[in-house]
Amino acid sequence: MTDANDSISALTEDIREFARERDWEQFHDPKSLILALVGEVGELAELFQWVPAADAVTEFAEPARKQRAEEEMADVLTYLVRLADVLGIDLASATARKMESSRRRFEPKDVRGEAPIKR
Amino acid sequence: MTDANDSISALTEDIREFARERDWEQFHDPKSLILALVGEVGELAELFQWVPAADAVTEFAEPARKQRAEEEMADVLTYLVRLADVLGIDLASATARKMESSRRRFEPKDVRGEAPIKR
Amino acid sequence: MTDANDSISALTEDIREFARERDWEQFHDPKSLILALVGEVGELAELFQWVPAADAVTEFAEPARKQRAEEEMADVLTYLVRLADVLGIDLASATARKMESSRRRFEPKDVRGEAPIKR
Amino acid sequence: MTDANDSISALTEDIREFARERDWEQFHDPKSLILALVGEVGELAELFQWVPAADAVTEFAEPARKQRAEEEMADVLTYLVRLADVLGIDLASATARKMESSRRRFEPKDVRGEAPIKR
Repeated sequence: MTDANDSISALTEDIREFARERDWEQFHDPKSLILALVGEVGELAELFQWVPAADAVTEFAEPARKQRAEEEMADVLTYLVRLADVLGIDLASATARKMESSRRRFEPKDVRGEAPIKR
Repeated sequence: MTDANDSISALTEDIREFARERDWEQFHDPKSLILALVGEVGELAELFQWVPAADAVTEFAEPARKQRAEEEMADVLTYLVRLADVLGIDLASATARKMESSRRRFEPKDVRGEAPIKR
Repeated sequence: MTDANDSISALTEDIREFARERDWEQFHDPKSLILALVGEVGELAELFQWVPAADAVTEFAEPARKQRAEEEMADVLTYLVRLADVLGIDLASATARKMESSRRRFEPKDVRGEAPIKR
Repeated sequence: MTDANDSISALTEDIREFARERDWEQFHDPKSLILALVGEVGELAELFQWVPAADAVTEFAEPARKQRAEEEMADVLTYLVRLADVLGIDLASATARKMESSRRRFEPKDVRGEAPIKR
């Protein structure tokens, strides 16, 4: 994809405009946006909660369920992008930097096939 | 920004390659990825939890704290993008569609200045 | 309160029986229960997301909103208690121990009036 | 168990006293407490994220990992109980009522062996 929709910065501007047209910027302080993000992550989690782990990809290939997952993931991204905008964070660059850091931190020869365990 | 880093599809491929090089695809079933996403959202929430709502933007303009917020938000985006990839979801298109739907659902003349209350 | 409802162990048995009667134990593996917990935390977060921080206690004193908060918090507790049961964890004792540890870790003379900042 | 530790109201008072001794009540507005709750749920999720679903109970029977799960679940309960206290909610009664409502809503004969699917 090369269209504008695929760009995080274009999406950021779309969402900023959406908020401005509705005079909703007043509600978009960081803590409120994080709670909104949590709400959407919760809706995403609910879709998958009782599906057997091994069946999840297959069950969500069914169009109606796939669309529900898409909608919740879109909402998560929307609030994440809005939060970054409010905080003056360049989310795309931050993610590229974090990936670069993870590549160095987890070298393939050290971690291949092993999940890092959080303790 | 117009560079490749700003593209969700380029980021998707980067993260896919990162997982493949480490043979970590085996851990990336949807439920596990959602739990990982929840973990990162939790780290983001912890950064902000005790900051007075009105001070959050200012306090997180401080470089060290901004960087911590950037890192956690990058992690959230990384797992969200990875989940979309595993589910065969085009996250950018899904978000554009959801924004279009929200524009129609919440017309400025009906909702200006009023937060939609969830009941 | 001194009635049985106030006991975490009694609640644990109630919820266990509820699952057994419906043959739902099969769905209650830890990861699924955590996703269910996340779903309920998300619903709780949604109730509060756009309320100004300083007004939250007052707004949720209104009976209908208070009841909604009660329901979501009850759902969070239910899945937390169920998860503890499935893992063989005595949640009440664990919490008493954690409180004791926190009392030592955060001595009043060291932390009075200051929020511990997560970095 | 019949000791005081098993009582949600006794735990509520313990946590209230803990906050008062540290002059931390000022940080405990509902939105901040929900973010703190989200932080702890995130830490719980991280412990389990890459464990195969079918192995989770067994892997967390190992004492060190069980203790980590206990600690995070204790933290979740602590913030949930504190939030209820701040909102004037009787969490034990609310949960008993919600269970009663769920018993009626999901009658065993209607739902036996079938997970309610969220759509």
